[in-house]
Parts: sequence; C-alpha cells; structure tokens
Amino acid sequence: MSALLQHIAQYVSLTPVEQQAFLGYVSQLKLKKKAFLYKEGDSGDKSAFVISGCLRAYSIDKNGVEHILQFAPANWWITDMHSLLSGRPAKLNIDALEDSEVYVMTRQQQEAMFDAIPKMERYFRVLLEKSLVANRQRVLDNMELPARERYFNFCKTYPGLIHSVPQKQIASYLGITPEFLSKLRAEVK
Amino acid sequence: MSALLQHIAQYVSLTPVEQQAFLGYVSQLKLKKKAFLYKEGDSGDKSAFVISGCLRAYSIDKNGVEHILQFAPANWWITDMHSLLSGRPAKLNIDALEDSEVYVMTRQQQEAMFDAIPKMERYFRVLLEKSLVANRQRVLDNMELPARERYFNFCKTYPGLIHSVPQKQIASYLGITPEFLSKLRAEVK
Repeated sequence: MSALLQHIAQYVSLTPVEQQAFLGYVSQLKLKKKAFLYKEGDSGDKSAFVISGCLRAYSIDKNGVEHILQFAPANWWITDMHSLLSGRPAKLNIDALEDSEVYVMTRQQQEAMFDAIPKMERYFRVLLEKSLVANRQRVLDNMELPARERYFNFCKTYPGLIHSVPQKQIASYLGITPEFLSKLRAEVK
Repeated sequence: MSALLQHIAQYVSLTPVEQQAFLGYVSQLKLKKKAFLYKEGDSGDKSAFVISGCLRAYSIDKNGVEHILQFAPANWWITDMHSLLSGRPAKLNIDALEDSEVYVMTRQQQEAMFDAIPKMERYFRVLLEKSLVANRQRVLDNMELPARERYFNFCKTYPGLIHSVPQKQIASYLGITPEFLSKLRAEVK
C-alpha cells in the first residue's frame, strides 16, 4: 500500500474502493535535490505529500535573506496555504533539500476529492489541527523564548531533522545566524 | 437564527434537523469583562465561539510578561488548541476583554458532533485552513518585517480591533512596548 494511504489509515478508514478513488486525485512526482515544486510568483495551486526525501517552504525578504517557514520530511504535507486558498501567485518557494518523491494534489482535485469521499474531510481537519498547534507554539516561542530554548524545542519536536537537514537551514528556520547555532550545538555537546 | 448557525451556513448547508442537533452540542455562557474562560493550569478542554464581545488568549512568561496569541471578536472561535487536542492542562489563559457572550463546546462534544453530523467536518476544516494561513503569515512577518510594518499589517487584517481593543493589548500581540506603539500610531496620523 502506498505511504500516503498508510498515513490516511492512521486517521480514517477508507474502503478499498475509496482508496482507489482517492489515488485518482493525486499524481506522483520526483524532484531532484534543489528542484522546485514552485517558486514565488508561480501558481501555488498544489499541496505535496512527501513519500521520501525532504522539502522546505521559505520566503525571501527585501534584503535577499531566506526565511524558512516549514520543513517537510517523509509523511508530511507542504504547501503555500495562502496561495492554495486564494488562488493568488505563491509568496513562498518550495524546493527539495535532497532527492525526493512526492504525491501532488491541486486545490481543484482536493475539492473534488472532498465531494467524492467526504470521510477525507476528517483526515485533513485533524492534520490542520496539529499544524495549527505547532504554528501557534512557534509564534509563542518566538515571543517568549531566547534562541537557546527555541533550538532545544526544535530538537525535541523534530528529532529526525537535526541530522538530515543542513545546519544553515535550521538556523534560518530559527531566525538566528549559522555561527550562533554552532555555539548552541557546542553547548549541547 | 443564532449567530453560530449563521456562521456555519456560510460554509456548509445544514438541514433544520441538523441545526437543532448541532445546538445540542453547545451551551451558552456569559462572561463579564476580565472573567476567564479558563486559566493556565486549568482544563483547556473547551472551544468558544464569540457571539458578542471579545476574548483573548495569552501566555505569561517566566518574567510575568503577557504575550497575546489571539484576539477573538464576534464570530471567531478561540481555544488552547494544544490543550484541547492533548487533554493536558491549559498553557494559555483565555479571558474576556469586555462583557461577552459565547457558545462553548468541549472536545468530547465536538467529537460526538462530528460523528452525528459529518458535514461539520468541512466547516472546521475550512476554518482551520484560514487560521493556519493567518498563523503562518504571523510567523513570517515576525521574521521578516520591522514592527512598523507588522503594525500596518495588523491594521489591515483586523480593522475592527484597532478601535475596540486597548492599545496595551495590541502592543502585547505585536511584541512591542506600548510606548513604541504610540509612536507608530502618531506616524500613521
């Protein structure tokens, strides 16, 4: 069974017929390391579910500095949610940190899929709840905690990413310099 | 028809029987200004939909400083989502900024409601998508933008709140001092 159907099965129980129907709404895509799912200004009308590899979503500010909003290792969904809902061009860049394989679904496919398989509303509702918890915690951490504790929280929340994602990327996610991250890592050791 | 049923009708179409069934899963509550829906350490097993007035969710850091995560004026839902999902004690305080009237639903009631009225999955899925967009934008704004532009974005996103919420609260939401907010406001004039 595909990684995506296994992931869905953790949250809702689809019949074999529904599983087959669901797979009709997604398509598989391979991304080489550094390839883009889409760039800022492109249509952002797609979500991707990572089968293997790791994607990231980031913006580039006026000064050319990258700010990483999200990492998506295997079994995570990633999208520019603002663009997906509004139909406006993407504000985010989404690319592959390593050779990756993903399922891709457009918003139109997703909406048709919800109409055809209403059970899937629950799957995405539950994932959205979890994402919202993580994002709200990040907002609070940024307001409350020094970089040191935000780094510890990151290690606790994403233990798998610490070793698979380049340190420069983690620094960008935490909003600190790579040099300062090196100091924090030395402290941990 | 109740404000909550009107709000739901913007997203999903319930039959009169489903509407009545839905109202069986919520209860009405009045909160005086400064009264708490719950405090940090209490059970956070409730969501509230604001009929009138305004609630806010905030945490208090080690130094006793309040950090506002969310305002909820009329027609908004508010909860400590982490506590709601995990069943752990609330990390947030939720109180009323003015005399308010709300509908309250426990997580258990919400889950029973989803089983009884599956259409309601879509209502919450769509609201969660919108919340996630707003929260992700806030994470990016905090990384990318100076306080001045974050204040302008706040004014654009929540025009109704600028006049109804005390300036001290808006400063706490933006992570700046009330004095600095006064300066920004003077600039805008």
